[in-house]
Amino acid sequence: MEDNSYVVKMNGNGVNENNSLNGVNGKGLNRNGIQHKTVKGSVSKSKQKSRRQRWNIRPSEISINTLNPIRAIVDGMKLSPNPGKPMIALSIGDPTVFGNLPTDEKVTQALKDAIDSHKYNGYAPSVGYQKSRDVVANFYTCPEAPLEAEDVVLTSGCSQAIDLAITVLCNPGDNILIPCPGFSLYKTLAVSLGIQVKLYNLLPEKSWEIDLQHMESLIDDRTTCLIINNPSNPCGSVYSKEHLQNVLSVASKNCIPILADEIYGDMVFPGCKYQSMASLSSDVPILACGGLAKRWLVPGWRMGWILIHDRNQIFGKEIRQGLVHLSQRIMGACTIVQGAIESILNDTPQEFYYRTLSFLKSNSEICFSELSTVPGLTLVLPAGAMYLMVSLTRSELLAFEYPNYFRIVVTVPEEMMMEACARIREFCQRHYRPCSQDSNELDQ
Amino acid sequence: MEDNSYVVKMNGNGVNENNSLNGVNGKGLNRNGIQHKTVKGSVSKSKQKSRRQRWNIRPSEISINTLNPIRAIVDGMKLSPNPGKPMIALSIGDPTVFGNLPTDEKVTQALKDAIDSHKYNGYAPSVGYQKSRDVVANFYTCPEAPLEAEDVVLTSGCSQAIDLAITVLCNPGDNILIPCPGFSLYKTLAVSLGIQVKLYNLLPEKSWEIDLQHMESLIDDRTTCLIINNPSNPCGSVYSKEHLQNVLSVASKNCIPILADEIYGDMVFPGCKYQSMASLSSDVPILACGGLAKRWLVPGWRMGWILIHDRNQIFGKEIRQGLVHLSQRIMGACTIVQGAIESILNDTPQEFYYRTLSFLKSNSEICFSELSTVPGLTLVLPAGAMYLMVSLTRSELLAFEYPNYFRIVVTVPEEMMMEACARIREFCQRHYRPCSQDSNELDQ
Repeated sequence: MEDNSYVVKMNGNGVNENNSLNGVNGKGLNRNGIQHKTVKGSVSKSKQKSRRQRWNIRPSEISINTLNPIRAIVDGMKLSPNPGKPMIALSIGDPTVFGNLPTDEKVTQALKDAIDSHKYNGYAPSVGYQKSRDVVANFYTCPEAPLEAEDVVLTSGCSQAIDLAITVLCNPGDNILIPCPGFSLYKTLAVSLGIQVKLYNLLPEKSWEIDLQHMESLIDDRTTCLIINNPSNPCGSVYSKEHLQNVLSVASKNCIPILADEIYGDMVFPGCKYQSMASLSSDVPILACGGLAKRWLVPGWRMGWILIHDRNQIFGKEIRQGLVHLSQRIMGACTIVQGAIESILNDTPQEFYYRTLSFLKSNSEICFSELSTVPGLTLVLPAGAMYLMVSLTRSELLAFEYPNYFRIVVTVPEEMMMEACARIREFCQRHYRPCSQDSNELDQ
Repeated sequence: MEDNSYVVKMNGNGVNENNSLNGVNGKGLNRNGIQHKTVKGSVSKSKQKSRRQRWNIRPSEISINTLNPIRAIVDGMKLSPNPGKPMIALSIGDPTVFGNLPTDEKVTQALKDAIDSHKYNGYAPSVGYQKSRDVVANFYTCPEAPLEAEDVVLTSGCSQAIDLAITVLCNPGDNILIPCPGFSLYKTLAVSLGIQVKLYNLLPEKSWEIDLQHMESLIDDRTTCLIINNPSNPCGSVYSKEHLQNVLSVASKNCIPILADEIYGDMVFPGCKYQSMASLSSDVPILACGGLAKRWLVPGWRMGWILIHDRNQIFGKEIRQGLVHLSQRIMGACTIVQGAIESILNDTPQEFYYRTLSFLKSNSEICFSELSTVPGLTLVLPAGAMYLMVSLTRSELLAFEYPNYFRIVVTVPEEMMMEACARIREFCQRHYRPCSQDSNELDQ
């Protein structure tokens, strides 16, 4: 079926009718290497043709601006591991890497049952199966913050939940308030969309509570979202009811909706109490983001959700519709995991949760007692999540936008935690100098 | 831990120092309901405060502009089904809905084996496990278009592959060329990002080949991507080697990269031959998008990929790095499916593929022979994919941006296909009038 009719007839002498472009570089080519030509047989302006004369493909602004600082640090690290000591990675927020924290047998069985049912191979609605959304709503509903299936959007991991929530609430030029120190994804996503981030301080001396005065001072007329992460990555803090109420007061007074990153929700150590943001608010509209990743120890499964709390119809139908629109871009979470979610949420034994949290608490306490007496280090004992922040008196480590601190992931096996603490202690003893010395002097 | 220090001290009398805003609405409030105030104890301009006085949350422009026309039609349909006839859905592009086309036992077993290995619960790199990328590269590599693991980006379904490919290549104000009729997602994604779409015609009288002259006439200096869908949704066409070479000539001459949507790759009926775009090009840089959805009959699993073909380093490191950046937004595909992909690609028996394609071919032929003789209908026999396009002499149906055509999905069981054809035939016989009559007359 040979056919040469597709060849557009153009004159070949490169007449450039666009003098302003021509004037820019003096070569008849604009910055994209495009030469303007005239279509044969037509002199009308509207039919003026142009085509590239050479390849010049540049990545888009959004792809250039999607920058994950943690990733840049990790990928840029040049380490020569001590050949006598196996590496102990305390920096990766993945509870599965050491094999000591497997998910529950019920969770994996639920996935296998979903496969065997042959019911979950096709497309789900982009916001998730109705049944699966219903299950999530029932799991998280409470009298103070009731939920129904229509209040739930299932997503490809909590990262997509946060992406959709930021994207629906903010236009380029708006700004969001994010915690410092805090999870790097908030900034990565916002900046890529042309949304400004303003960092509000967390106070280590007050168990990493939010500096509310500082936070409120950042609010301006383009602030469209306040991100609250509780329990907190990287601090391991769990906010009191009173503190959360104070946060809600700021949001309410300034009419700013909250994105509650509650991926570590319910991951609080025995003896502590976790309260969801939404259960304490009667008016502030909240998008609560969560998922299976941390509590069920399966971050790779990419099962997340947004819970829409909007008792006064402030978000209204439009924000809900906006979330539905955005969910249609990539059609959400893996259907097999969606099919398993009823059993995962309802059948996982309480002992599984308790065992995980007891381990994390115990490991945090080991880490705290091993390191808190080391000269040059200051620690805040965490109350939840999987992290513990250590302050260095002398260092220039950068992580979580927070110099002189580093995060320890407390999911490693106990022996490795002990060994790691011993190494840190030894290192600090070798390098620490009391403050009375000239602090400008370099370490040797 | 009561602390009132967070209360920002402001005077309460609503002094509005911003006269220009005041002038707009005469109420001291701007369009966002924000009142400008002065911080007590500070008269410096830089410390001037403003806050919202009332709730006013609006969905972002991008969420408003993310519109899926198919979804709008389907959700907007008000149908009163004939109570005497069960509904036969011929419009849903999901091969799993009728249960007659299950995936292969090897495919589901691979997923269960991945679960039992307990190796795939943690985070994978955002572009996918190295091993899984290697497996995909080995499956699709050929001497004419060699692939290695680093040329593969695993994604959450082919939709995310298309999303990342468009997003990395185009800035707002650029334009892309897409087929008409064609898959609606291209336009949905592009328009949401401020990228213009230009529709090039497919020619039903030439088995839905591309109107190359029309396509080339659309190229201008802001054209940054040419989308080619082969085998085609909704047309079921499979392009010849010569036609693909002609397409590549247009891309090469105009220096436009190709996004090859090859999700129906290898899904061609016995007797036809499929060739990937990349295997025919020596210079045009190509992002080939694919996934497990259609050929392995598991669209809900959300396993897709981008194959980067760039033998002349025209994309170069920057486009690859841009794709890596963008993949970090949501961290890619479900790890269990990633863990299963080696066995899925290498162990699925050839008979499975053959059985699927024989069924689709047979069903297409039934549909063609039942309907092609119906007055008022014109059909093009498909050569691949899962669809057959029917032209209506008289109708105002809108789908795939293509009036007077509708798409039939040929994955339904044979008896239902027969019954559906009988109903369509009967409907047309009742409503069809020869063209000699006044074509402005309304049907009764």
